[in-house]
Amino acid sequence: MYETNKLLKSIGISKPSLLLDKNRVLSNIEKMASKAKASGVRFRPHFKTHQSAEIGNWFRDFGVTAITVSSLDMAMYFAKHGWSDITVAFITNVLEMNEINDLSGRIKLNLLVDSEQVLSTLNQQLKCRVGIWIKIDTGYHRTGVLWDDFDSLNSLVKRIKSSPLLDFRGLLTHAGHSYRAKSLDEIRKIHKETISRMLSAKDYLKDIGIVTCEISVGDTPTCSIVGDFVGVDEIRSGNFVFYDLMQEKLGSCTENELAVAVACPVVGKYKDRNQIVLYGGAVHLSNAYIPDEYGRQIFGYLTNLQNRTFGSIIKNAPVISLTQEHGVVSVDDELFNEIDVADFVLVFPVHSCLTCNLYKEYHSVQGEIISRL
Amino acid sequence: MYETNKLLKSIGISKPSLLLDKNRVLSNIEKMASKAKASGVRFRPHFKTHQSAEIGNWFRDFGVTAITVSSLDMAMYFAKHGWSDITVAFITNVLEMNEINDLSGRIKLNLLVDSEQVLSTLNQQLKCRVGIWIKIDTGYHRTGVLWDDFDSLNSLVKRIKSSPLLDFRGLLTHAGHSYRAKSLDEIRKIHKETISRMLSAKDYLKDIGIVTCEISVGDTPTCSIVGDFVGVDEIRSGNFVFYDLMQEKLGSCTENELAVAVACPVVGKYKDRNQIVLYGGAVHLSNAYIPDEYGRQIFGYLTNLQNRTFGSIIKNAPVISLTQEHGVVSVDDELFNEIDVADFVLVFPVHSCLTCNLYKEYHSVQGEIISRL
Repeated sequence: MYETNKLLKSIGISKPSLLLDKNRVLSNIEKMASKAKASGVRFRPHFKTHQSAEIGNWFRDFGVTAITVSSLDMAMYFAKHGWSDITVAFITNVLEMNEINDLSGRIKLNLLVDSEQVLSTLNQQLKCRVGIWIKIDTGYHRTGVLWDDFDSLNSLVKRIKSSPLLDFRGLLTHAGHSYRAKSLDEIRKIHKETISRMLSAKDYLKDIGIVTCEISVGDTPTCSIVGDFVGVDEIRSGNFVFYDLMQEKLGSCTENELAVAVACPVVGKYKDRNQIVLYGGAVHLSNAYIPDEYGRQIFGYLTNLQNRTFGSIIKNAPVISLTQEHGVVSVDDELFNEIDVADFVLVFPVHSCLTCNLYKEYHSVQGEIISRL
Repeated sequence: MYETNKLLKSIGISKPSLLLDKNRVLSNIEKMASKAKASGVRFRPHFKTHQSAEIGNWFRDFGVTAITVSSLDMAMYFAKHGWSDITVAFITNVLEMNEINDLSGRIKLNLLVDSEQVLSTLNQQLKCRVGIWIKIDTGYHRTGVLWDDFDSLNSLVKRIKSSPLLDFRGLLTHAGHSYRAKSLDEIRKIHKETISRMLSAKDYLKDIGIVTCEISVGDTPTCSIVGDFVGVDEIRSGNFVFYDLMQEKLGSCTENELAVAVACPVVGKYKDRNQIVLYGGAVHLSNAYIPDEYGRQIFGYLTNLQNRTFGSIIKNAPVISLTQEHGVVSVDDELFNEIDVADFVLVFPVHSCLTCNLYKEYHSVQGEIISRL
């Protein structure tokens, strides 16, 4: 814990703060970019995890020129910071037509549709050309046209093709059910099924004369685990930039790839129950959890700093409960004795996208402050 | 749904937004303030739920002059907005001594301690007088000195009494285990036990010669349900200002007292599974949940606007899953047909403190915009 305290106190923080290891982030980006390159697919990373213009710039060195976001707010932010090819990977919220018309006049904006209603509003109110992806449901059952609902596909694609301001780009899916997989084999199976279903839909379109149709896929578990992307034109993974405990549990990453942690001051120690209490609660970590082998809900695990990077996941130091500003950590005798009130401890988050969303800035272990949206 | 859409579109919002009914808020404040007055206890409401200077001002009309917050950041914010008697109801984070010394020179600042370490740092580094409460653990087992650990109590109180800058105020507890109660009777039982344990500790202090010692309690479930506060000097409830689905389930409030809801645009409808998908996810609602009678995790229930206030909890329209920006709502045939893509729906949050924390402002159904910390 000595190095953790020394660093955190030297950078002048005194309350829960989001810490990032830039070297790990760069290594995570490099690995995913190389894999995309080796497979000959476009790498259009999702920026909803980091939501930072500065971290976005780190991707440019790896040849990234096109990005994915999940809201028009994020698209506006990254457009302001020099990104000119952006896909909003969320069914288009046509209530935001002002933002859509503003952006589509300035950048290559790509939107998602899965219904006639949305297409109809776009047709009536668009002022500039946009790229259009049809969202396909390959088994996650959140949004999208079912992959084998060829009638709907036919009618949507015809409507897009007949519209002067809509450029049909292809079929896009998010195999989010990979997050519920119990093994690496199950993740590989989901990926295989996803690609096969996407290709069926593409074949159908070919049969009705639509020959130009890209395939875009993109969840972090499958993009991390599978070796290649045969049949795919574009991958959109995002969480891989930081990873988190949920991904580590799934097998998408190793603990050495976890690139963010939350630094929390210790405010109390309770010997009768071997617990330490952190200034660090649901508003600092989010209340996402993973189950442990005893069926408990775990909201994070402690780690520490070793040679200016994050150490192992300390499995015998789980965050076992969270309230608004408090986190309760169960520790063994050794750790209990080692940690003092007013020390800092580091917590690996369960779901880094939700945790990072709670902060205005990152502190890197390299000593920089990096701002967010 | 007609009134909901009409109002929300008239106030010019186009994405997930936090909505508040000012009349309900005022009524909730009035009820709690009257109950405190009738019991002859000081009402020191917790402002961590709303975190808004403007909403804070609404309390002044009900005679409130002293408040509770859960962080030094909030204390700084409310001090800037004219509050001069503030208790930070969180074990003191001594890493923030700069903030403590700044505030204690300007306002009546009250801090919590439960350990020698924190007292020791305060003694060494404080520059002005502060009020000190000893945090007591009456059964919640988060922080605090165990109510019957008289040795620790003795040693802490003696140290406070001997210190020139520390004014001993009394014993403070948070019976947070009331949130896990299964019935109103169990909540009443917890309250009774809490008061009895606090009075035991107070009696002990009297025996060792400490005659001035206040008792402060404060969770919303017990403060909402019990009829009086015999033996208590101060109540600190906070969530009651808005309440939420968790409180309604506990029986702390009725559905007519729910004072906030999140307005979310509908982006998709999926007839094969009778689900609608909202632009409104974990970053707009928080991923707090309550179980329903089928054991499902419920992240919110729809409601609507009727005569400019919130309607009933629509129990057959639960939010059954949340991801970063998506919410999936299961609806019956009638509601499915009634709701269209690009409509707004309203979602009652499970835990309003966490939901409100995700927004920079409230929109009142009365047409105002109210800013937050």
